[in-house]
Amino acid sequence: MGKPMAIIGAGNGGQAFAGYLSLHGRTVKIFDVVQNTVDKLTKLGGVVLEGHSDVTGFGKIELASTDIGKVMEGCEIILVVLPSIYHKDMAKKMAPHLKDGQIVVLNPNASLGPVEFKNTLKECGCTADIIIAGTSTLLFACRAIEVGRVEVSGQKASLSAAAYPSKYNDLVAEKFADILPQFNFRDDILRVSLDNLNAMMHPAPTLLYTAKIEHEEDFQYYLDFTPSQGALVEALDAERMALGKAYGLELRTLVDEYKNTYETSGNNMYEVITNAISAYTGIKGQKTMRTRYLMEDIPYSLVALQTMGQVAGVPTPCISAVITVARAIIPEMDEGRTRKNLGLEGVDKEAFEAMCREG
Amino acid sequence: MGKPMAIIGAGNGGQAFAGYLSLHGRTVKIFDVVQNTVDKLTKLGGVVLEGHSDVTGFGKIELASTDIGKVMEGCEIILVVLPSIYHKDMAKKMAPHLKDGQIVVLNPNASLGPVEFKNTLKECGCTADIIIAGTSTLLFACRAIEVGRVEVSGQKASLSAAAYPSKYNDLVAEKFADILPQFNFRDDILRVSLDNLNAMMHPAPTLLYTAKIEHEEDFQYYLDFTPSQGALVEALDAERMALGKAYGLELRTLVDEYKNTYETSGNNMYEVITNAISAYTGIKGQKTMRTRYLMEDIPYSLVALQTMGQVAGVPTPCISAVITVARAIIPEMDEGRTRKNLGLEGVDKEAFEAMCREG
Repeated sequence: MGKPMAIIGAGNGGQAFAGYLSLHGRTVKIFDVVQNTVDKLTKLGGVVLEGHSDVTGFGKIELASTDIGKVMEGCEIILVVLPSIYHKDMAKKMAPHLKDGQIVVLNPNASLGPVEFKNTLKECGCTADIIIAGTSTLLFACRAIEVGRVEVSGQKASLSAAAYPSKYNDLVAEKFADILPQFNFRDDILRVSLDNLNAMMHPAPTLLYTAKIEHEEDFQYYLDFTPSQGALVEALDAERMALGKAYGLELRTLVDEYKNTYETSGNNMYEVITNAISAYTGIKGQKTMRTRYLMEDIPYSLVALQTMGQVAGVPTPCISAVITVARAIIPEMDEGRTRKNLGLEGVDKEAFEAMCREG
Repeated sequence: MGKPMAIIGAGNGGQAFAGYLSLHGRTVKIFDVVQNTVDKLTKLGGVVLEGHSDVTGFGKIELASTDIGKVMEGCEIILVVLPSIYHKDMAKKMAPHLKDGQIVVLNPNASLGPVEFKNTLKECGCTADIIIAGTSTLLFACRAIEVGRVEVSGQKASLSAAAYPSKYNDLVAEKFADILPQFNFRDDILRVSLDNLNAMMHPAPTLLYTAKIEHEEDFQYYLDFTPSQGALVEALDAERMALGKAYGLELRTLVDEYKNTYETSGNNMYEVITNAISAYTGIKGQKTMRTRYLMEDIPYSLVALQTMGQVAGVPTPCISAVITVARAIIPEMDEGRTRKNLGLEGVDKEAFEAMCREG
């Protein structure tokens, strides 16, 4: 059975991981703050996984609890499966319970998630010798139809991940080799942060959809993209590419990324998005501005890229402009992963690269 | 009859001024670059003014011509009635023909129009001792149904205007007292520039309308405003207020301005705009992004306010963000009234105030 694994967060993704890992023979413990969810999972004794996963059926859960210490105890691997807006608070909650040798993976990390997590642990005085890592995206496209029953609509064959620092990539990869070989621990958290395409695809187009959203019109988020939305995403992507270059990372443009990943065609962002019919049919637009597309992807993705720019001395005027406009509209939005909040004031590019690569 | 007056630009506004001034007994000459327009006006011999003006009927035009020198010759007052995107080119065209004692008024000036105009004349080596002035808005709400026939839907009782520098306000006001007493020459071009409400009301809300505009939906520009559009305008207005304060000008907030000017009510921008039913019913939204709401009001209004901020050391993050997003969408947009283009590099607040007030 191997050592038990802890899953932090029993939402769609957390329940999917619980069922999946259990069906693959692991002992699984799961934490959530919602007592009702935990009670239901305890009563059911596990999760039923359905749909397009390589395993389906009932996966047993050893322990579902609101006691994070009990869930983490004795687990070598801890998967945090939460929106990034909760990462910092969760780091504070986990800090007193972390033990030497544990590995914490943020699924997904948004951008610079492990940097925030580690900095928060440090602020909490946590001295446990652990490794933090992050993935670029979630393994599953899934939703919990009800607590204890998860429908998987897609499972990725591979996704980029990195330990922070990346010198631990091989060590972490070895631990995941027999359970989650899809996690491709390579490069570093800088690259994984730039691979976070939500930063490009969510906030800026959402702002240009504002009037439609607030008039509660029905629309398809991707397939109704317009040329100006495409142009703005391209401008953001040019800054993402410049960040990659500054940190010595060769990135593919988003247009090329789309052509390689999706069934689509076109010469620019607008075309490759609106031609990605099979991938995007049915993904609806929002009816309010206060969704994760802004509330999470601005503070925990775009702000992190802005921070990467500040540290490297790379201007990111479009990224900053989108952040500024979004904050004017939603003043209560989290500050997020600013240079200060990540403890990176006074840290320059070379020092930051060393932090991400050598530790 | 007084001295002849020159009108530069035979669009809606220019033709309205021509008819109006002629009906008030002045000799009027008019310039346009479009040969067809000039030919038609020459053939008709004047303009018929209809609708809600204090004078209506046929107003004779002494000369309609594409020869700007002939039109300007012998005129003490020259009214430039053109979109601000043409001001700089027109200054270059007018430079060789300007004579000591002439007064050039930009109707309207957008923001910092006279600063651009004067700087352009200087670049052209023009040494004529003239006075340049600007108004905050156009006297008429009007449209030319056809060349030579203008329908006036509204005429303002008063509008703010300023000579550049403002020490000439009284001198200019005296010249206008018997023909255009509506021109209220007071304060200075800094204030008139901040009174340009298009800078607040056009670019930012247009960006948030992007998806509706490019899907060519029918909507009403003002009455379909949403709360986030209102919030963004308020954020811009806070920066406008800060600019006013820095330059020692006491401005009314846009919300108060609306409550004083329009038949409306409400506690915030969103409410006062969407409640201004009588003023705004029928003002439709755009069907393309490339209209004056962005192409003119970004480079010649918002950029000018950004420049005022740079000169005074007042941060204008929202104004700059809106400019940046608009430029990402429309890269071919004019640079406009940047600090450099206005010849204000190295000019600080005190020096600029002196330029605007003392000359």
